[in-house]
Amino acid sequence: MTARNNSQRKNVAVFAPASISNIGPGFDVLGLAIENPGDVVTAARRKEPGLGFSVSSNNADIPADSARNVSAHVALIMLDEFRPPFGISMVLHKRMPVGSGLGSSAASSVASVMAVNHLLPRRLQKCDLLRFAIEGERMVTGTAHADNVAPSLLGGVCLVRSYDPLDVVSLSVKNTVRWVVLHPQLVVRTEDARRVLPAQISLKDATRQWGNVSGLTSGLARGDAALIGKCVEDVIVEPARAHLIPGFYDIKSAALAAGATGCSISGSGPSIFAVASSDARAKRIAAAMTIACERYAGVKSDVTISRVNMKGATLVRGGAR
Amino acid sequence: MTARNNSQRKNVAVFAPASISNIGPGFDVLGLAIENPGDVVTAARRKEPGLGFSVSSNNADIPADSARNVSAHVALIMLDEFRPPFGISMVLHKRMPVGSGLGSSAASSVASVMAVNHLLPRRLQKCDLLRFAIEGERMVTGTAHADNVAPSLLGGVCLVRSYDPLDVVSLSVKNTVRWVVLHPQLVVRTEDARRVLPAQISLKDATRQWGNVSGLTSGLARGDAALIGKCVEDVIVEPARAHLIPGFYDIKSAALAAGATGCSISGSGPSIFAVASSDARAKRIAAAMTIACERYAGVKSDVTISRVNMKGATLVRGGAR
Repeated sequence: MTARNNSQRKNVAVFAPASISNIGPGFDVLGLAIENPGDVVTAARRKEPGLGFSVSSNNADIPADSARNVSAHVALIMLDEFRPPFGISMVLHKRMPVGSGLGSSAASSVASVMAVNHLLPRRLQKCDLLRFAIEGERMVTGTAHADNVAPSLLGGVCLVRSYDPLDVVSLSVKNTVRWVVLHPQLVVRTEDARRVLPAQISLKDATRQWGNVSGLTSGLARGDAALIGKCVEDVIVEPARAHLIPGFYDIKSAALAAGATGCSISGSGPSIFAVASSDARAKRIAAAMTIACERYAGVKSDVTISRVNMKGATLVRGGAR
Repeated sequence: MTARNNSQRKNVAVFAPASISNIGPGFDVLGLAIENPGDVVTAARRKEPGLGFSVSSNNADIPADSARNVSAHVALIMLDEFRPPFGISMVLHKRMPVGSGLGSSAASSVASVMAVNHLLPRRLQKCDLLRFAIEGERMVTGTAHADNVAPSLLGGVCLVRSYDPLDVVSLSVKNTVRWVVLHPQLVVRTEDARRVLPAQISLKDATRQWGNVSGLTSGLARGDAALIGKCVEDVIVEPARAHLIPGFYDIKSAALAAGATGCSISGSGPSIFAVASSDARAKRIAAAMTIACERYAGVKSDVTISRVNMKGATLVRGGAR
């Protein structure tokens, strides 16, 4: 064994966080990482080449075969490209709900590519892992969206400015605002959420939307909860998708009445996020949204309060030796 | 005369700068003030009530009657609202070209409201003058646009987030970038530039546009010429208006070849702005654009190089006595 090999990890665990994509008006271009929930991937080198893959989850619907699971899919792509002189055995600890609008598949893909990377003889930079992680999104949705993958991997707030070439900008964040995220226990399929979108929109609505995107970008950099809140107004996608989430407008009203400066759908839903200027307010908002969800949507929900997760995916076991 | 009156100005001159509205992708919501050119309004109290108005200009087309001149129009609105115990005699020194895409009418309106304000017994805050100045735009275009008026008055880069209620956000600016502004000596009528706009746009184009708006907002705050440059890409309005400016794409190509990081139409044109990372580059770009304008548009042009004018409208004569 060379010194180089000795310094490499043979057994790692990686946490990749959930994310709020769109953040209101930034459909398909903005996303931010939150602290919780997230997925964990553990991986170890093994002598036998190729990938050994399994899933640890309470949800029996998570596919464990590598042709249908994003974690396995992106790991195989990396193994195929880098052909290390060893195989990998991997376990996806699926903790996030599927179809939640919180970037569940993105977190699984990101945790996987980050774990594989830490086992490789020559490690890539985090930003160079993006192109592998988005292949998980391509497998699930048919399109290699990066608006959940980028923040889950890199942390912070990411702007996906273009795909050809892939151009991701980490936006400036003054991390003072609290993000309340309610996940009603129901599923919105991303395909359904995409199908309801209009192909054409009015220039008037679009103008309103990009005004809000500018204000949101500025508000995030300033940590200005009032500016962020009013600018998470989404006049295009939210009106088209709201009916997919029972009780959406009631839950939103409850959040605003409890002091949220703004509220909209996380990703393609059904999760709903609200913006709070303080921890105390965030707790009141979380409670109000939870009650409203049970009353108006008729379902239980999980709720988290978080600042922006500035780190993104992190190694939780297997530090350099 | 009371002490209060003694401290007031009786004779003032105000400079209000030109502005680049839209700044590429931010159609109808973004605008930034530049250092030059601009209009000047001189005004003095007179015993006779009402407004005495005249124009000093090389351009015989500037209307001098108060029913058709924006400076007189907005001054009359202020006099009508505040009814000071004196009249005002005003001269608009019209230095800016009309129909240039540089916010010429906005500068005339802004200089006027600022001059009147400095003569009033109780002066308003600058931001409270916005509602008067936009009436000049309403007179000229039928709509009280604020995307030139706000930066000309307040300076910096302004986001006009909404009109009802009027909500203007001063964006953060790290003022390192140079803005090269070429004004070809031809006129594009704002009505014509509005008529060519599509009423409906694709969600795909809109998404690209608001991604650019986010990157532009972030780039301005960071003083990042590369990010600003690529984000001034406008996939909606520029393609619709380019044909109104002879040689536009040739002039843009010349700017980019000379080192501009980005280039687009200022306001409704025909002025064209380019983004430069240094003064030396800006000079090369200005020269290249000037030559290209003469060659491809067949007209002479004026060109200015400027940072963002962070002050906006300023009193150039008549300090407190």
